[in-house]
Amino acid sequence: MTAPLPLIDQHCHGVLREDLGPHTFAAYLSESDSPAAPGTSFLDSQLGFAVRRWCPPLLGLDPHCPPEEYLARRRELGAQEATRLLLGATGITDYLVDDGLRTPHMTTGQELAGLGDGTAHRIVRLERLAEEVADTAGSASDFLDGLARAVREAARTAAGFKSIAAYRYGLDFAPNPPGPAEVRTAAGHWLAERARGGRVSDPVLLRHLLWTAAETARPIQLHTGFGDPDLRLQRCDPALLTDFARAVRPTGCTLILLHCYPYHRSAAYLAHAFPHVYADVGLALSYTGARAEAVLAEALELVPFGKLLFSTDAHGLPELFVVGAEVFRRGLRRLLDGWVSEGAWSRADAERVAPLIASANARRVYGLCAP
Amino acid sequence: MTAPLPLIDQHCHGVLREDLGPHTFAAYLSESDSPAAPGTSFLDSQLGFAVRRWCPPLLGLDPHCPPEEYLARRRELGAQEATRLLLGATGITDYLVDDGLRTPHMTTGQELAGLGDGTAHRIVRLERLAEEVADTAGSASDFLDGLARAVREAARTAAGFKSIAAYRYGLDFAPNPPGPAEVRTAAGHWLAERARGGRVSDPVLLRHLLWTAAETARPIQLHTGFGDPDLRLQRCDPALLTDFARAVRPTGCTLILLHCYPYHRSAAYLAHAFPHVYADVGLALSYTGARAEAVLAEALELVPFGKLLFSTDAHGLPELFVVGAEVFRRGLRRLLDGWVSEGAWSRADAERVAPLIASANARRVYGLCAP
Amino acid sequence: MTAPLPLIDQHCHGVLREDLGPHTFAAYLSESDSPAAPGTSFLDSQLGFAVRRWCPPLLGLDPHCPPEEYLARRRELGAQEATRLLLGATGITDYLVDDGLRTPHMTTGQELAGLGDGTAHRIVRLERLAEEVADTAGSASDFLDGLARAVREAARTAAGFKSIAAYRYGLDFAPNPPGPAEVRTAAGHWLAERARGGRVSDPVLLRHLLWTAAETARPIQLHTGFGDPDLRLQRCDPALLTDFARAVRPTGCTLILLHCYPYHRSAAYLAHAFPHVYADVGLALSYTGARAEAVLAEALELVPFGKLLFSTDAHGLPELFVVGAEVFRRGLRRLLDGWVSEGAWSRADAERVAPLIASANARRVYGLCAP
Repeated sequence: MTAPLPLIDQHCHGVLREDLGPHTFAAYLSESDSPAAPGTSFLDSQLGFAVRRWCPPLLGLDPHCPPEEYLARRRELGAQEATRLLLGATGITDYLVDDGLRTPHMTTGQELAGLGDGTAHRIVRLERLAEEVADTAGSASDFLDGLARAVREAARTAAGFKSIAAYRYGLDFAPNPPGPAEVRTAAGHWLAERARGGRVSDPVLLRHLLWTAAETARPIQLHTGFGDPDLRLQRCDPALLTDFARAVRPTGCTLILLHCYPYHRSAAYLAHAFPHVYADVGLALSYTGARAEAVLAEALELVPFGKLLFSTDAHGLPELFVVGAEVFRRGLRRLLDGWVSEGAWSRADAERVAPLIASANARRVYGLCAP
Repeated sequence: MTAPLPLIDQHCHGVLREDLGPHTFAAYLSESDSPAAPGTSFLDSQLGFAVRRWCPPLLGLDPHCPPEEYLARRRELGAQEATRLLLGATGITDYLVDDGLRTPHMTTGQELAGLGDGTAHRIVRLERLAEEVADTAGSASDFLDGLARAVREAARTAAGFKSIAAYRYGLDFAPNPPGPAEVRTAAGHWLAERARGGRVSDPVLLRHLLWTAAETARPIQLHTGFGDPDLRLQRCDPALLTDFARAVRPTGCTLILLHCYPYHRSAAYLAHAFPHVYADVGLALSYTGARAEAVLAEALELVPFGKLLFSTDAHGLPELFVVGAEVFRRGLRRLLDGWVSEGAWSRADAERVAPLIASANARRVYGLCAP
Repeated sequence: MTAPLPLIDQHCHGVLREDLGPHTFAAYLSESDSPAAPGTSFLDSQLGFAVRRWCPPLLGLDPHCPPEEYLARRRELGAQEATRLLLGATGITDYLVDDGLRTPHMTTGQELAGLGDGTAHRIVRLERLAEEVADTAGSASDFLDGLARAVREAARTAAGFKSIAAYRYGLDFAPNPPGPAEVRTAAGHWLAERARGGRVSDPVLLRHLLWTAAETARPIQLHTGFGDPDLRLQRCDPALLTDFARAVRPTGCTLILLHCYPYHRSAAYLAHAFPHVYADVGLALSYTGARAEAVLAEALELVPFGKLLFSTDAHGLPELFVVGAEVFRRGLRRLLDGWVSEGAWSRADAERVAPLIASANARRVYGLCAP
């Protein structure tokens, strides 16, 4: 691989519009929802060190310079210019943005792609969509009709859907579509309690969302593996999706397993076993930094090379796009170069496979225009 | 390790007798039961690249030559001559053949071993044996008597048994032997529905098969870990066999955990913890190709070196014997050389351990004659 | 890292006072409770080879000399002098000793630390404490009062507590504290059956022990992952502790996940996600010997560097302290040197992080005096 590899980031979020204080900066380097333990720092992690390696040079500083120096330089440039410089170095051409986490402090997908000189595509988070529909629904039937309409509309314009059933319940939900009566009852209960702020977490409704989206035949991204402490890791093992994958296959939909760590080998197996299942190890690569190559290597054991996608899952900080892109590109290059040099792969195959994973697989799965 | 290491392939299947078209060839390079996803190919996988690396030179072509060129050369030679050339290069001296998957298009174990200039041994697949007995049984008692007789007879001549309870139910079955009344009832139900083509999948019957085989004290191979999409991966974790292993131990039988990926570390632990448990990572090495060394290294963390066996799980294609043998031998040699060169192992220990895993452990466990 | 790294062994046991025969020696190199399988030896394992690599030179012999030669030399020196020589080479300054496994043939923590020229700290095993209190309790109330008192007293002098709920039940226990009536009933049942030698294994009592200890706010070590064949590995996955970790957090206690293998990535995630959760991979490093660096690398993917601790879990043999210390120190140094040389970490960060993991994290978590 001689030329830099253009990337399609098939799963990411917006970034903060404002300058960062040290606490905000560190908080976005962890999936924890609490301050770091006394005497420890979120910066002392593979992700923290990866940010300090890759980002300062893009703002004219030495790699691994003290975090304070970096943040000072960042404020000097202003959030917008820093974001522009950081995103500009990633080689990302397309951003598939899940705006389910968005707050007014964060960029929209369009703004993000503008700063990164790329193209934005929308990924619609099913649970947020349901919550928005519920906000104006007068009854369970209203809600269900509105939801069906909203999903159909989203399918016309969005690149795909995203499910966080892993967080809200776990991936050990019943595989088959819930019946209409069951769905209506669950919707009624949820609307009643929603007055008190309830998020959608009833597995009947979560399954209904998934099946409604599946019927549109747009790709569905599923959070699997680690994430914030809301989830129970062992219930986010993508292998738990086997029966659902089998059941949903006749709809013609595509399932994309996100992150997957530490179950990325199981995800790779599912992508191997089922034609409509794909995988990425997005978040896992950024968070494991110096170990990203090792994690990527494990994913590349069973996954067919036409079935692995790239993403950063970056959220809040443009730095996370930089780290995600750099550790992926470097890890992939080192693995492929290693396999070529020991004769396991031909150079031609390596040159052909790298752009599949970097962009072509995503382009094909989401039906994006050619570059 | 200077001389090539002779291998005992303790778990494999027959190969196709006829020449191959490109579709058949690719289909045997995947555990999937469907065509590859649109825009992808099963050849674009670690296994596909490993076949293209190791096999063409044995037929006089360059490594990594185009698949079409390889298949053309193979047809030119004819299936039998190609098989002979491929198997002849594996260094496999003994083939323990599970003929539970055999169709008339595939070689018997004897034919396979003849083509490979080795010795055949039979592994009797319990579920197929039960299905054959059921085909001629008039009643539940007939079936159970016939089964007991068939298992006893098999134990006299076969090297061991094989269970695919992992596929048919999962490894989370009850550990203790089912009672006679329970077994009779289950057998009656199964025979009744078998008119409609039912395979044996009732956990009572699967357990009865295992316990009947265990009483013969012949080794029992158990499928664990990944395989075709019939299974649910998380229910094939060999750790689920802990209580069964404990319960069955007084019979004097030996359990051999096959494949195990991605749970091979758990399998290695069971082989460490229980004297009558052994493990192999057969299928996992072939499928992970350039990564086989890494997978083997993980198995070699906890497994006592007298407890790991070699197999290819090759099925359909003689190429799979070549890949299984090459990636195992190369991976083991590189690992042991590495540990010797950094002082972690002595050279003498490495020279002693390699043939244990390659053949001596299998020879001892199955009671095969000395070479 | 130029100077040797002093270590705090945050979880270990006493060593045998007497000279060793070959059987005893080999038996302490396995977690199995049975003799090695016919034709195999516990010495033929990564741990066996690691002992033979690191220990003979400390007694004036060549690395990898025959075990008999090593044992003869050891007897010549006498157990006490051999222990002194072996422990003296470990660089361990503090021994946190769980004496829950102690027999009269084994050293106390004080004796151990004396031979090792270090400081002893006590870790109180909750289940043993409960069994001791039960031995003199006349009634359930007596027992519960006595237990509360014993835990309070232990909290005043011990460095922390240890739970083996993983062995006695599994980590899939209910997360919340059991109610008083429930506890009293369970205590009554247990005391009644204890006449027949019963150990504490009722999950209600195991949870009561954990919650009683948690209320003292002293750190609690939890066995997770592999160990002797009493346990069911899949029920020792530390991820199963997620709900308990969340529930117990308001008490202010600290949870330290021990060993964790092969689920050390899940343990690292919990340490990442929850401020009061820490992890170590103690036993896993000793047992995997030449592979310890690879296992440690996996733990270092998600764990914040302020959250990983060192231990040996050595038991019976002073050799296990040597191996635990050497493979940890060597593995950590090689990993950090590697990351520095490829630019992923700065040298200064590596020099700062190594002593955190080796000792400073433990010093902070247990509130040990500065060296």
